[in-house]
Amino acid sequence: MPAACRSSPGIRSADEPAWPRDRLSNILGVDACTRHRQLSWPKFGSPAVPLNTIAAAAKALAQGNTTAEALVDQALTRIADPAGEGKRAFIAVHAEGARASARAVDALRKAGRAPSRLAGIPISVKDLFDEAGHTTTAGSAVLRGTSAAKATAPCLQRLIRAGLVVLGRTNMTEFAFSGLGVNPHYGTPASPWDRAKRRLPGGSSAGAGVAVADHMGFAALGSDTGGSCRIPAALNGVVGWKPTAKRVPLDGVLPLSGSLDSIGPLARSVGDCALIDALMAGGEDPTPPAARPLAGLRLGLPRGTYLTDSMDGTVGAVFSRTLTRLATAGVRIIEFDLPELAEIPAANATGGFAASEAWAWHRALIAEKADGYDPRILARIRRGETMSAADYIALRAARARIIAAVAARTAPFDAVISPTVPLIPPRIAEVEQEADYNRINMLLLRNTSVANFLDRCAISLPCNAPGEAPVGLMLMGEHGGDAALFSIAAAVESALAG
Amino acid sequence: MPAACRSSPGIRSADEPAWPRDRLSNILGVDACTRHRQLSWPKFGSPAVPLNTIAAAAKALAQGNTTAEALVDQALTRIADPAGEGKRAFIAVHAEGARASARAVDALRKAGRAPSRLAGIPISVKDLFDEAGHTTTAGSAVLRGTSAAKATAPCLQRLIRAGLVVLGRTNMTEFAFSGLGVNPHYGTPASPWDRAKRRLPGGSSAGAGVAVADHMGFAALGSDTGGSCRIPAALNGVVGWKPTAKRVPLDGVLPLSGSLDSIGPLARSVGDCALIDALMAGGEDPTPPAARPLAGLRLGLPRGTYLTDSMDGTVGAVFSRTLTRLATAGVRIIEFDLPELAEIPAANATGGFAASEAWAWHRALIAEKADGYDPRILARIRRGETMSAADYIALRAARARIIAAVAARTAPFDAVISPTVPLIPPRIAEVEQEADYNRINMLLLRNTSVANFLDRCAISLPCNAPGEAPVGLMLMGEHGGDAALFSIAAAVESALAG
Repeated sequence: MPAACRSSPGIRSADEPAWPRDRLSNILGVDACTRHRQLSWPKFGSPAVPLNTIAAAAKALAQGNTTAEALVDQALTRIADPAGEGKRAFIAVHAEGARASARAVDALRKAGRAPSRLAGIPISVKDLFDEAGHTTTAGSAVLRGTSAAKATAPCLQRLIRAGLVVLGRTNMTEFAFSGLGVNPHYGTPASPWDRAKRRLPGGSSAGAGVAVADHMGFAALGSDTGGSCRIPAALNGVVGWKPTAKRVPLDGVLPLSGSLDSIGPLARSVGDCALIDALMAGGEDPTPPAARPLAGLRLGLPRGTYLTDSMDGTVGAVFSRTLTRLATAGVRIIEFDLPELAEIPAANATGGFAASEAWAWHRALIAEKADGYDPRILARIRRGETMSAADYIALRAARARIIAAVAARTAPFDAVISPTVPLIPPRIAEVEQEADYNRINMLLLRNTSVANFLDRCAISLPCNAPGEAPVGLMLMGEHGGDAALFSIAAAVESALAG
Repeated sequence: MPAACRSSPGIRSADEPAWPRDRLSNILGVDACTRHRQLSWPKFGSPAVPLNTIAAAAKALAQGNTTAEALVDQALTRIADPAGEGKRAFIAVHAEGARASARAVDALRKAGRAPSRLAGIPISVKDLFDEAGHTTTAGSAVLRGTSAAKATAPCLQRLIRAGLVVLGRTNMTEFAFSGLGVNPHYGTPASPWDRAKRRLPGGSSAGAGVAVADHMGFAALGSDTGGSCRIPAALNGVVGWKPTAKRVPLDGVLPLSGSLDSIGPLARSVGDCALIDALMAGGEDPTPPAARPLAGLRLGLPRGTYLTDSMDGTVGAVFSRTLTRLATAGVRIIEFDLPELAEIPAANATGGFAASEAWAWHRALIAEKADGYDPRILARIRRGETMSAADYIALRAARARIIAAVAARTAPFDAVISPTVPLIPPRIAEVEQEADYNRINMLLLRNTSVANFLDRCAISLPCNAPGEAPVGLMLMGEHGGDAALFSIAAAVESALAG
């Protein structure tokens, strides 16, 4: 047993003086300190990229140690590498445009006129953001060949105005309506972990997760309606951010569910997510979040099995070890009752927001082109067809009531902690059967979709050790508490790296 | 032709240099300066009340020229007068409680401890506001005998905390779902005008309108989902206010439509409405609005017949005369295109907010007690039964689009001007047949419901001359522009009184 597991000084139950070690195992259903398989991450053809984060790259750009053109070239090389996943991670690559932008930024920086510190950083966008001159297909076949967007989505335009360089459009679950990341039209990119076995990238921002993990750009814009930024972050070993929905404007982004959609980045560090999020939210010259001291930080851990049921052994063990590690670092992990979690599926039983709102958007298109849809996505959208207005209205009322009740329960905590998803990446082949597709999809979405229903912010960051299977740690903040959550997540990231 | 009609110096079309006199007649379908029938308002048994407005009564209270007890007694006497409409205007009268409150306020004021300048002013509340210890029936039979409210609606509690005295609960259209004011369970109070002919009070705040007109209190709290404060104001010759919906909390008020409901007062002056509204919105020591100068004020008059179709001769003539009078006072009346008006009924064609949201609230109660509903109200609620979630979602999207489009069109104007309702009060007997009930109801709601759909503020104030049939002038402000609209309405009120 590692030293960190022998005592848990900071772990406290809300109504008990101390948390016995055996309870931790009981709650999580695993031995808290099981040793994990040590697996190495795959490499592919191109040479290692020296700069890992936006923060480091921005510094190198400022110091003249690299150029935007070099960063863009490296990323394009990774995308084009036939040994990699670029051809499945991207639906469109703007190689020419990206190189031209990079050269222009380099010229501006040389003249002392760089539009921002982040100018020249290459990023990708999910195929549901409008980019002027490109067609938004949202990973579908039915929108292929439709007219190009006339305007760029404002949140993306803010990044372009700051000089960031768009490499291309990433692959995704068709119309963003599943958490697995499987796409029959453009292929399914595999998670970087244990790649030979072709494991699920998670979705719907599947290409975004793989692109960031494989250094095809420093960050990837995603959308998160039930976990679509955080699930691929967890399964690809990167950081995924879901802001409070209203923080980033949804204009120019093809909707799945107006009540739940949020726009956030995936990146290789909490700080990088914070920088991209700040620009998308309208900030002009953002700085990375200051890590909040861990000592005395109070993280709420919901009692019961809602967030830990069906957890596989690796996730359980890594999550448990992470709790212990945080507690050792001075974080108070406090168990609390959150019975409202069970009310969420009950409220959604009449159809839910995503299906009804997707049906409202898609019904005209489906009337014409149902045959062009992935049948599994079509079936999910059609679930909204029979929902009544009264049930939808009742769902909105239930949501408001649950949001208020949960806010009161979580008020004593700085954030709520849980695993992002209960599984390490299943193999793509495992979800070929419809029943498995549905079961695994529901499992992957279960924990993440809570933050969307509650209209709060949340982040997933890796908590596995290097070489282990990817495991995401999720922290959920308050509605509008985005800056506070970034500070907490930055501190947790440091503690887990130490 | 009165002098004021010979020229219209301020009347300008948005794209024409001047507005020919004959166009005014064409648009309104009447001779702009027809003389109106001069009718005297009915009197009933009790002596004239010397203090007409809250402002005057508050001054008299402060100066010791009257007492809260005297004001409450006068109001209770009016309510109890068998020659009056009190027994139909009120569903419950809290005579004992009101007298006790008044005496307590007098004692506090004598001790220099009055909770506010308005302490002791008697008011009434519509029967859908919760009052601790009283049953909220919303003018229905099905809720009669249900348990009393445990807490008072926060917006009402704010008035009580300021020392205002609740006289009782006013009658209303059952569940607030019609603009006529007819109630088969508690009787229909008649408009004060031409009372012998028993004319419609308008609704749904029917008792509120009659109570204020007949001096049964200085103000009456109403709700306005499609015009329920403004229609009875127009038909009873008083002022009715609909705030921007979110301005006054809806908690503790029995809902009709969460998307459209707003809470506002009816009173005998614009300033009195502003005082009550300010307290309900959380203000602590409100003062009457300063009248904005009329010279240079720009009032937009929508082109076309949406707001003037089916207008009776009296309303047309009085409205036309009012425009001329305002123009003479320096107001610029500017015609503008508002094609989005016609999109509102189109958007509502799949069911609308009120029916679907009412059905969501009532369906459980209807399952048990359908027989106890007024069949006409039941039929209106049941219209929401078949609406789909997708149609409701599409309606919300259409509303947002129309709101934005109209905001751009009305931006050049300080307010939009129209008649409140196109009719003088029809006789109650005229709406006995269902077809007439529906036709007249739709006519009365047509103009007012625009402000609810657009989520804006609006006010109706009398524009008829003393002794004429009551005609309401409606001014619609911007979303959140409540204070500005009060200042404009106060100026218009002064101009029309002069």
